[in-house]
Amino acid sequence: MTGEKKIVIIGCGAGGGTAAQFARKTDKKAAITIFEQSKYSQYSKCGLPHAISGEIPKFKDLIEFSEDWFKKNRIDLFLETTVDEIDIKNQTVSAKKGNKQLKKEFDNLILATGAKPFIPPINNIQKNGSLINGVHVLRTIDDGKQVSSDIKKGGKATIVGAGLIGLEVADSFYKKGMDVTIVEALPNILENTIDNDMCEPVLKELNEKIKLYTNHIATKLEERDGEINQLFIKDNKTNEEKKVETDILVIAAGTKPDVTLAKSIGCKIGKTGGIIVNEKSESSIKNVYAVGDCTEYKDFVKKESVCIGLGSIVVRQAKTAGINAASGKDNLPKGVLLTRTSEFFGIEIAAVGPVKNAFQNIPVLFGKFKGSSLPDYFPGGKPILMKVGVHEETGKIVSAQAVGNNAAQRINTFACAVLNETNVEDFKKLETAYAPPIAPTLDALTLVCDVASLKFARKRR
Amino acid sequence: MTGEKKIVIIGCGAGGGTAAQFARKTDKKAAITIFEQSKYSQYSKCGLPHAISGEIPKFKDLIEFSEDWFKKNRIDLFLETTVDEIDIKNQTVSAKKGNKQLKKEFDNLILATGAKPFIPPINNIQKNGSLINGVHVLRTIDDGKQVSSDIKKGGKATIVGAGLIGLEVADSFYKKGMDVTIVEALPNILENTIDNDMCEPVLKELNEKIKLYTNHIATKLEERDGEINQLFIKDNKTNEEKKVETDILVIAAGTKPDVTLAKSIGCKIGKTGGIIVNEKSESSIKNVYAVGDCTEYKDFVKKESVCIGLGSIVVRQAKTAGINAASGKDNLPKGVLLTRTSEFFGIEIAAVGPVKNAFQNIPVLFGKFKGSSLPDYFPGGKPILMKVGVHEETGKIVSAQAVGNNAAQRINTFACAVLNETNVEDFKKLETAYAPPIAPTLDALTLVCDVASLKFARKRR
Repeated sequence: MTGEKKIVIIGCGAGGGTAAQFARKTDKKAAITIFEQSKYSQYSKCGLPHAISGEIPKFKDLIEFSEDWFKKNRIDLFLETTVDEIDIKNQTVSAKKGNKQLKKEFDNLILATGAKPFIPPINNIQKNGSLINGVHVLRTIDDGKQVSSDIKKGGKATIVGAGLIGLEVADSFYKKGMDVTIVEALPNILENTIDNDMCEPVLKELNEKIKLYTNHIATKLEERDGEINQLFIKDNKTNEEKKVETDILVIAAGTKPDVTLAKSIGCKIGKTGGIIVNEKSESSIKNVYAVGDCTEYKDFVKKESVCIGLGSIVVRQAKTAGINAASGKDNLPKGVLLTRTSEFFGIEIAAVGPVKNAFQNIPVLFGKFKGSSLPDYFPGGKPILMKVGVHEETGKIVSAQAVGNNAAQRINTFACAVLNETNVEDFKKLETAYAPPIAPTLDALTLVCDVASLKFARKRR
Repeated sequence: MTGEKKIVIIGCGAGGGTAAQFARKTDKKAAITIFEQSKYSQYSKCGLPHAISGEIPKFKDLIEFSEDWFKKNRIDLFLETTVDEIDIKNQTVSAKKGNKQLKKEFDNLILATGAKPFIPPINNIQKNGSLINGVHVLRTIDDGKQVSSDIKKGGKATIVGAGLIGLEVADSFYKKGMDVTIVEALPNILENTIDNDMCEPVLKELNEKIKLYTNHIATKLEERDGEINQLFIKDNKTNEEKKVETDILVIAAGTKPDVTLAKSIGCKIGKTGGIIVNEKSESSIKNVYAVGDCTEYKDFVKKESVCIGLGSIVVRQAKTAGINAASGKDNLPKGVLLTRTSEFFGIEIAAVGPVKNAFQNIPVLFGKFKGSSLPDYFPGGKPILMKVGVHEETGKIVSAQAVGNNAAQRINTFACAVLNETNVEDFKKLETAYAPPIAPTLDALTLVCDVASLKFARKRR
């Protein structure tokens, strides 16, 4: 080795892989090494439910950057390799690939260790440290393949958790012709994604197509002949117990940042359990960056730490980390906007900024508007339900939610407003694109701000 | 009459009608009068091509606010009524409805007189002051009905002008099974809407579906048995003459602001020929407001006057005029963004800010990116071509154009950036909404800014 910069990356998910890509773009000569536990190079975890449903034909289609790609870009990718030690004083990483012990020096280290599924305390869910047959999480391609092999048309599928992943998986099972049940401990679906009052169009679909138990906790599993057979659930309020027959159970109850290695070298861990990183994607330890689901970063609106769990943020952190680790200069905005979207049961949802219950001490008023994607006179308009959050004192737009037609692209416009700290009085005057077959003269974007603006004016009187 | 505020509005298009609506909202007691030449209350002119195509079932569906609506809102709407005089000293308007002479006092007057189609000097196009049989403009419901009655499946239709309206009408004729030809004097289609290099996807469709002559001027019409028969066109460069057989000819060569009444009272007219208005929608004459296609207003980026010809701007001006005329307080942003969109031959286009050739002395660099609406691994992604304009010195985003999937909503996000004078370096870090079936982790929005940002960085070195 000569005087080239040495960069070691732990993890080759969207975080590690993207960091490597931008490190290489920034420094053509740097020696870049990635250690990855699984046998797959960078792939889309978010695509897993869509590979299960068959929308994406094969699981291997999810691979975005092949081993070959990394080779061509002179990035040493070690798959099926587990890091056992980081020596921060001597700046080395030790790893094991099969029987082979590896050791790499680094100038800069990037932790992209991701997160692990949270397994709720359900009786009998594990046997000898493994989930029993028919019980799954959905975090990796291997998880996805196992889920797929358990799918039977007409069979019964249960999902614990009605967040984004839970609903995406439920939709996949539904598309595969299964009889689907969702069990959610909280009083509503999508509690961290959109407000309860925005869920109505989704709930309508769910109630037609699947069985949903909110306010219910999964307590116990029953096997028959070594296979999962029944899930016992309990009503949070009445304590009434019910049995849900099920052939397959997917746990989608959230994740926990994987910070074992980070802790071993003394990285500061935040209150959400993630590695604390700054706008340069640096951890608290010199020369150590961290990106993705193992980290936490400031929320743009609340100025408080939030854990990172969105692919869109991961790749942006990773870009910054990769550039900086390769001696470039990059930084993130002063917080995350949490722009998010998903689609299930034919409904697109999207949001930016905290949900209503997460604002805590910040005084926020809300405008809500139900409109159509097209002018009234043009046939075929699709419903769009919107909500916008406005700071009661400053008038700045701090959040927005959309359910229905083009929710995601509409939310991108609001994301731009939140990033620019645009006042609702200015935003409502934004000229939106109008043409009869495309959008009304005043888009739902504008009209929802008119509602919020009226409330804002009343408060200021 | 008691002490109520008296508001007179001339014209009941989107401008006049919307102004009345907001005047009423602002002042429940004001006496509001509208004089309208045609027999229709407020309807969508932009919808006319879609009523011709049949997408909108009937022309009367285009009426957005009925006579009855105005009556219910205690707005005196006089249809088929022509204003013959405004007495600015005595603040009265005289008008004629049939044989009846009307006279109304006003405290505030709103001019919403619109624009008239420009008729290019084509030999034989008029007879006794009227267009000959088979030749049409498309500005009113009556125009639309006449066009419709001339449509014959398998017949030949020619359109002069390849701007937005020209292409929308061409698409309508094509949908009706006609053999369509477009003649455009300029070297390219859509010259004022998107840049030449953005037209490729549209040109591809046009070349497959219709006959297009750019750089050609229509010179002469030939009749047979009192019906239009042939259009003579001339190549701008070679002077070569061609004949185009045609059963119907639509002139879509732009409009001229109708400022006859405005001139009669001394309103200042700008260099584009429109009534000069300010951010309060006031003309240069006290107590006289003007809105819509008869006006010109500052461009947000160029700070120069542009004529108004977009429904989205008209309703926003009208809202401001209506509120202010009723003694409320409202103002427009400090210029128009010209956010615009359309769809023809299956392609959605949209843009905000000046086209490249219109920037004149402003130094602007451009980023361009061709991407997909979905991640590579998700089947069914649709192409999206984007372009962003960035001020070479400040880095501010000053324009954007999009052709393809969800062009309009993507352009709305850029409109928000232009309005906020967002720097491309900040905008490219915007978290866009990501989910495999909806959008990639880095939307075309972001990637086009990456391209522009690289160019910007190089310029700054």
